[in-house]
Amino acid sequence: MSAIYDRVALIGLGLIASSMFWASKRRSLAGEVTGFARSAETRETARRIGLCDRVCESAAEAVEGADLVVLCVPVGAMASVAAEIGPFLKPGATVTDVGSVKRDVIENVCVHLPDNVHFIPGHPLAGTEHSGPDSGFAELFDNRWCLLVPVEGSDRDALAQLRAFWEGLGSNVEEMDADHHDLVLAVTSHAPHLIAYTMVGVADDLRRVTDSEVIKYSAAGFRDFTRIAASDPTMWRDVFLTNKDATLEILGRFTEELFALQRAIRTGDGDHLHDYFTRTRAIRRGIIEAGQDTDAPDFGRVKQPK
Amino acid sequence: MSAIYDRVALIGLGLIASSMFWASKRRSLAGEVTGFARSAETRETARRIGLCDRVCESAAEAVEGADLVVLCVPVGAMASVAAEIGPFLKPGATVTDVGSVKRDVIENVCVHLPDNVHFIPGHPLAGTEHSGPDSGFAELFDNRWCLLVPVEGSDRDALAQLRAFWEGLGSNVEEMDADHHDLVLAVTSHAPHLIAYTMVGVADDLRRVTDSEVIKYSAAGFRDFTRIAASDPTMWRDVFLTNKDATLEILGRFTEELFALQRAIRTGDGDHLHDYFTRTRAIRRGIIEAGQDTDAPDFGRVKQPK
Repeated sequence: MSAIYDRVALIGLGLIASSMFWASKRRSLAGEVTGFARSAETRETARRIGLCDRVCESAAEAVEGADLVVLCVPVGAMASVAAEIGPFLKPGATVTDVGSVKRDVIENVCVHLPDNVHFIPGHPLAGTEHSGPDSGFAELFDNRWCLLVPVEGSDRDALAQLRAFWEGLGSNVEEMDADHHDLVLAVTSHAPHLIAYTMVGVADDLRRVTDSEVIKYSAAGFRDFTRIAASDPTMWRDVFLTNKDATLEILGRFTEELFALQRAIRTGDGDHLHDYFTRTRAIRRGIIEAGQDTDAPDFGRVKQPK
Repeated sequence: MSAIYDRVALIGLGLIASSMFWASKRRSLAGEVTGFARSAETRETARRIGLCDRVCESAAEAVEGADLVVLCVPVGAMASVAAEIGPFLKPGATVTDVGSVKRDVIENVCVHLPDNVHFIPGHPLAGTEHSGPDSGFAELFDNRWCLLVPVEGSDRDALAQLRAFWEGLGSNVEEMDADHHDLVLAVTSHAPHLIAYTMVGVADDLRRVTDSEVIKYSAAGFRDFTRIAASDPTMWRDVFLTNKDATLEILGRFTEELFALQRAIRTGDGDHLHDYFTRTRAIRRGIIEAGQDTDAPDFGRVKQPK
């Protein structure tokens, strides 16, 4: 594949940026990739492992002459990064981001960008429980969705070019408006993460069951929650603070439903429970058929005999 | 390894029983294994795939002459199965079960067993989201815990023999008393399952987000919940109805904590969120160090580059 952008700048060098770099190298999607991270330690790691063609000492230096600038920092840090790079952006450049919340990013980033660049927010729905510059890998986006959220007046050519770039990284691309994005993600990602964090915190807190028991016997179900509850704390703090309304709405629905099931347990209404548990099985089948998970028992943690 | 029991009878032929059969064959732990399932279709499947040395047409026939009888039916069906087999048990035989709740099983099964058999309740903490006779495999119990819950007067020799059998199947065995078992499992298994079922049900219900969106974008976190929410509805209905008090207690703690996090989101208390999310990471590390999960990113769903 020939390069889609001559120069790409990655601002923030965590799991997503590092995976974008390796995925971009895999298919030579960019002529040169520069990178910047606020922490000297992260920049040092990046240089050591060959992450980015050139690791810069400032965000301004990294974006200079870049045709595509990708903001890969926590949502709460987007505005200050945008303010920092705004004056140094190349006219005609595309600026995008990978934040998990879109309305807040749009409101806080736009104001810092000059009129002569294209701002096209984005969000790759991919990740693992690991974070940092050495957690990335080229296959992270393969067959995962990337949502692009064009704002009013987004240039169609710039959008098409960004779409081609994400497709080259391995993603399936869809467009969505910002408010719908934030609601869909509240359901599929933000509320589940908060619930997982909560359950893990409760288990950790319980005096009559020791931590060591929780850990030893985690394979009985609890373990599945701990993966997403091990995600980056700063990233997730920012997600909840910036997608407050949609997240609280879904959590309200969740609590309502949980109370109904608790009442069914208390009153011994086995039919209600059985019906509910039967319905949820169908969703799992849908996810496997859609290629968004593996049907291997127990996520393939154990080997099968044949 | 030489046989630990001459004759073993498996009553109920789902995921656990079928895995016990294959694991027992792997190391020749039993001379002959008989099996029975209430459903003619399950018995037919068992015969077709060679599950059990002999599939019987009644529970009474299956337990005749057996040195070890394992009740592998949902918790709510244990009492009626015990009543059915009671008169046909061999004097001196050991009767055990694999139910996820222990106090209720002890109270309802003991009364149906003659005095001349040993009843030693058990619970292997292993499973997958699949169920039925063809879902079992020999490695299911490898490096997983099996909890034995001796009752008052349990014979030490019979207990040692059952322990050796479970160790032969691949498990690490511990003893625990029934009430503590039910509380530990409420934390590590029962509450997490109910919460996962609830979240999946809420997502399914939401009018403004279509099912297809929930499924397409599930890799953002929601997906991890759907595995355990695809577990067998009958088994889980029985678990909640029979471990009511401990489950409701943990769910009460969960709700309290969830409300505190919701309030932190509403009031914008980022420090509270960040501290909470940092603490939960440590539990994940503990689980991986204890060998109860894999550290592969995203459960190894994606291939790593090198």
